[in-house]
Amino acid sequence: MDAKEFESLVIQNRSFRRFHQDQRIPHQTLLDLVDLARRTPSAGNRQPLKYAILHSPVDCARLFPHLRWAGALKGWGGPAEGERPAAYILVFCDTRILKEPGCDQGIAAQTLLLGAAARGLGGCMLGAIDRARIRAEFNVAEDLELPLVVALGVPAEKCVLEDAPVGGDVTYYRDVQSVHHVPKRPLAEVLVELKP
Amino acid sequence: MDAKEFESLVIQNRSFRRFHQDQRIPHQTLLDLVDLARRTPSAGNRQPLKYAILHSPVDCARLFPHLRWAGALKGWGGPAEGERPAAYILVFCDTRILKEPGCDQGIAAQTLLLGAAARGLGGCMLGAIDRARIRAEFNVAEDLELPLVVALGVPAEKCVLEDAPVGGDVTYYRDVQSVHHVPKRPLAEVLVELKP
Repeated sequence: MDAKEFESLVIQNRSFRRFHQDQRIPHQTLLDLVDLARRTPSAGNRQPLKYAILHSPVDCARLFPHLRWAGALKGWGGPAEGERPAAYILVFCDTRILKEPGCDQGIAAQTLLLGAAARGLGGCMLGAIDRARIRAEFNVAEDLELPLVVALGVPAEKCVLEDAPVGGDVTYYRDVQSVHHVPKRPLAEVLVELKP
Repeated sequence: MDAKEFESLVIQNRSFRRFHQDQRIPHQTLLDLVDLARRTPSAGNRQPLKYAILHSPVDCARLFPHLRWAGALKGWGGPAEGERPAAYILVFCDTRILKEPGCDQGIAAQTLLLGAAARGLGGCMLGAIDRARIRAEFNVAEDLELPLVVALGVPAEKCVLEDAPVGGDVTYYRDVQSVHHVPKRPLAEVLVELKP
């Protein structure tokens, strides 16, 4: 796989929030994604992350009420029934190993989502979640913290990446066709020149 | 790019700490890697990360003394002259945008390193760094925090991923041939079963 192909994968891998809910994801596919995530770099190779797979419609429905969606889209309460994720991977930090996951959660979740994109799937990392209620609903062990949930499915929306003007607004938005636009800070804005 | 090809890239992307120091990396390649990183998902799309590229031998030599290498390899002070990184990308958090980078740093750095692997390069995220000295040496603006440094180069060492026994030791080590071994927790150990 060359640099251009990988770049296409990175672009394809947007945060999707609406899915073909009836297109379920085989359990083996979800296991394969966790298997990818566990083989990513980990600070000091400590590997504090653990993963739970939710894939049945019943379990997905138990989790859904405890998730918050796209805070910047005012008036949108999240995907409607029929457009909800077909699976979730819960990313835990085992505090018996490390109190804080540090970089590891982003490394693992991004790898997992790139792996999903390579399979024609899409998803979204969700950090705005009701941890206490999820803990109660699924009887999560006390030693496990839940830094984030990864929602997965076959995307049912179009997401467009665009360059914001330098110093411009980067708030994402939906247009009248319900296309989701994600303005990214341009290269000139994210580069820092250091003292020679 | 399909799932198998992406899996190979994830496996190929190990943390390398010894390089062919004389094989320099073109500035454009480093810009392309930053350009990849800036287009990754960001929590709330806030994009607090900024990047500085160090690629000249002089600048690399100014940074090197402020980095700590592979804490678990006792008695190894880091790569010798001739095996040091050929470039670095410093990953900053612009605290005018957000106080903490959260997940973003891991997402961006992993994507950047996968992009490097797709170009036949390798590297390592370094979080054990002397931030105060780096700040002083390069006159880093007060608003920029430095969560991590990514070292890059053409790898000059072999890294082998292996499955640890369940509950076994995951400390990385070098064998007598100086091959670097990285034991990962097996799939059975990282999976959490939730209450049905």
